[in-house]
Amino acid sequence: MTGSLRILGLGPGDPRWVTPEASAMLDEATDLVGYGPYLARLETRPGQRIHASDNRVELDRARAALDLAAGGAQVAVVSGGDPGVFAMAAAVFEAVEAGPTRWRDLDIAVSPGISAMMAAAARLGAPLGHDFCAVSLSDNLKPWPLIERRLRAAADGDFVIALYNPASRARPRQVFDAFAVLRAVKEGATPVAFARAVGRPDEAITVTTLADADPGLADMSTLVLVGSSATRLIVRERGRPFLYTPRNAAP
Amino acid sequence: MTGSLRILGLGPGDPRWVTPEASAMLDEATDLVGYGPYLARLETRPGQRIHASDNRVELDRARAALDLAAGGAQVAVVSGGDPGVFAMAAAVFEAVEAGPTRWRDLDIAVSPGISAMMAAAARLGAPLGHDFCAVSLSDNLKPWPLIERRLRAAADGDFVIALYNPASRARPRQVFDAFAVLRAVKEGATPVAFARAVGRPDEAITVTTLADADPGLADMSTLVLVGSSATRLIVRERGRPFLYTPRNAAP
Repeated sequence: MTGSLRILGLGPGDPRWVTPEASAMLDEATDLVGYGPYLARLETRPGQRIHASDNRVELDRARAALDLAAGGAQVAVVSGGDPGVFAMAAAVFEAVEAGPTRWRDLDIAVSPGISAMMAAAARLGAPLGHDFCAVSLSDNLKPWPLIERRLRAAADGDFVIALYNPASRARPRQVFDAFAVLRAVKEGATPVAFARAVGRPDEAITVTTLADADPGLADMSTLVLVGSSATRLIVRERGRPFLYTPRNAAP
Repeated sequence: MTGSLRILGLGPGDPRWVTPEASAMLDEATDLVGYGPYLARLETRPGQRIHASDNRVELDRARAALDLAAGGAQVAVVSGGDPGVFAMAAAVFEAVEAGPTRWRDLDIAVSPGISAMMAAAARLGAPLGHDFCAVSLSDNLKPWPLIERRLRAAADGDFVIALYNPASRARPRQVFDAFAVLRAVKEGATPVAFARAVGRPDEAITVTTLADADPGLADMSTLVLVGSSATRLIVRERGRPFLYTPRNAAP
């Protein structure tokens, strides 16, 4: 039997954000490969083989998935969020590029998912209503000076900025350094949101300003959004203000 | 009865990319408001009122939806893609901000969707595997110099760049001007993809380079992706090459 590899995302947590395409791919798979906590979210069917792994071994996981597919399995590689955004799809293609030539002609397909910044933006209002950037603050795989360069460029371009992977236990300080870079360029009144675990039971949202923000609020489950010069709040009688960036955003 | 307003996205076209949350919101609505061709994609149920409008009247459409919700209707505002990305959510919050104070305390919620760049990226491989920007080339609502400034900043930061609304019949030239800005900063060998109508029957994908690209390929249904210095192709025996940006992308 000819194997296949499907790379899909479960979204940030709410099961109602898993697309029908991703659900169908999960259902058709003989083998599910992914980070343990993502696989734990799934109701698997009898006979499906589960290959759970740790967070830090994306490339090993990608190679194992390709090996299974080359051997004839119907493999689903499971990411959180969108698999193409700071997630497993890039790791699979890195493994394909470095691996045996026959891997290149495997039946490989990626299915798009709801990325954390889209879910966070939806909860907040419409902060991504205008031009925006997404930057991962993890320097596990790229040098910090490149991250600083991108933050400066994003601030110079007056983009709304989504910060992925802002902090982890091993990297508690980068988010403070990133805020220092942004504070040097952008107004203190710029709206900032910390959106933690959006769509999960422990969801927590904080809306503040660049001047007042405590970067220590960010952890590995947090998506940080920093506004452009046009991003603003709509205050309400009840509940959190809406955060949005108008379509005619101009500095 | 208390009204409500739901703002949802259908994704770029493939019905398997409509989330279960968006489907439930459509099902619960008494009134569907949106651009005609998006509403035409839906199977409505008997009794639902359909308010189809033209492409250029987002703010009028948003006000009409808010008026219906204020009157007690369960309203679903229907976008393509993700409603928060260059789509209806920002228009609704603009209308809320400028409208009667009571609109601020309506029951309003946004549901995230699959945006065109995620779908295009999935088809191509993993070009958004690293830091990226999204820029709309439409100057209907923002001055062209701001668009140029953002394109330069995105190129200076070596981001992968997704260009939304690259061209329309009324704006055939901006995409040529945008390519001129990018060609002045970025290498000619940078991979470029034109992803047209992804997920629809007339889907068409072209992968080329910044030097060779014909900006005239872009129309209002096209998402253009321009690589970073690390974005590259994996050539295959059969089929289109995979396009991807490795996670350790560094210039």
